[in-house]
Amino acid sequence: MTDPAIEKADRIILGIDPGTNVTGYGVLGVYGKTLRMIAIGVLELGKVGDHYMRLSHIHAKITEIVAAYLPDEMAIEAPFFGKNVQSMLKLGRAQGVAIAAAIARQVPITEYEPRKIKMAITGNGAASKEQVCEMLRRMLDIPAEALRTKLDATDALAAALCHYYESAKPAVAKGPKSWKDFIAKNPDKVSGL
Amino acid sequence: MTDPAIEKADRIILGIDPGTNVTGYGVLGVYGKTLRMIAIGVLELGKVGDHYMRLSHIHAKITEIVAAYLPDEMAIEAPFFGKNVQSMLKLGRAQGVAIAAAIARQVPITEYEPRKIKMAITGNGAASKEQVCEMLRRMLDIPAEALRTKLDATDALAAALCHYYESAKPAVAKGPKSWKDFIAKNPDKVSGL
Repeated sequence: MTDPAIEKADRIILGIDPGTNVTGYGVLGVYGKTLRMIAIGVLELGKVGDHYMRLSHIHAKITEIVAAYLPDEMAIEAPFFGKNVQSMLKLGRAQGVAIAAAIARQVPITEYEPRKIKMAITGNGAASKEQVCEMLRRMLDIPAEALRTKLDATDALAAALCHYYESAKPAVAKGPKSWKDFIAKNPDKVSGL
Repeated sequence: MTDPAIEKADRIILGIDPGTNVTGYGVLGVYGKTLRMIAIGVLELGKVGDHYMRLSHIHAKITEIVAAYLPDEMAIEAPFFGKNVQSMLKLGRAQGVAIAAAIARQVPITEYEPRKIKMAITGNGAASKEQVCEMLRRMLDIPAEALRTKLDATDALAAALCHYYESAKPAVAKGPKSWKDFIAKNPDKVSGL
């Protein structure tokens, strides 16, 4: 019954960009060295009456997405600064209900600042939404139409892709502990002279 | 199998005071005009390693409490202002995971500012923790020892009690639409003169 795009993936990364007005999500599949967008979507909350209903919607939707795509990891776009304490409290709540949905399925979570995500995708931490979108389109070979109506979800997909790059980075190599250690690890680099 | 204190209650109100360092909870039972503390507790998170583990603990604990005490309503102590955006984001997340746990069981939620809670319990919006605690002790007839080690949860219990008072207040009476309407509703107040 599982979608073959999910079954065949080596890793599924769910990216989310939570907010009480709009919550975006993007699902990235990793197949060897190939990356594919599996899903992208926007949860419009502007017309949902009350604050708790919005949080409830976010929680229900992320729970549904986690159950449907079985992500191995979740990446959240998480600004560290906001306009004011009110907006940060609201944002924190939106993040909280989304995090709770992932935690319930033991999905590990990593946060990325918007600047870091833009940098990872475009090489420019101050890139525009359109630039991020265009890079995603090229990197994941997505038809332009597929993203046009989902502009609010591209940041979420970008978060997932950023997480892929970050986790694929080799750990910083530690220097050899001693000269003896260096020789043992690099016999070919020791000159016979 | 259900605790008779829960079964016999007309209403169960769960009060919570969420935070990523300490989350307090208090369960209030309403039996006709009698109020009783059913449970009180503190979730110490200071030693729980990582931020997600803390959120996970809060979510799991509130889920467990909701399942155990089957509250009809939940009241949250929710400050509207904080030291800075960072602390508000953290607080919002703690509130978010707690809210998600209540929403999952369709428990309606009401928020109260700390000042409002203190005012409802002691008549003084700037009352100290000790004053709130002492009033709770008297109003709910709790032995002093029962609260001594749970000082961090008294705000949560106070939130539940505040919610009881607020919800017991009669709705602001609307004036009669017309004189005719007044007479129809208050025949005894119409003088025969």
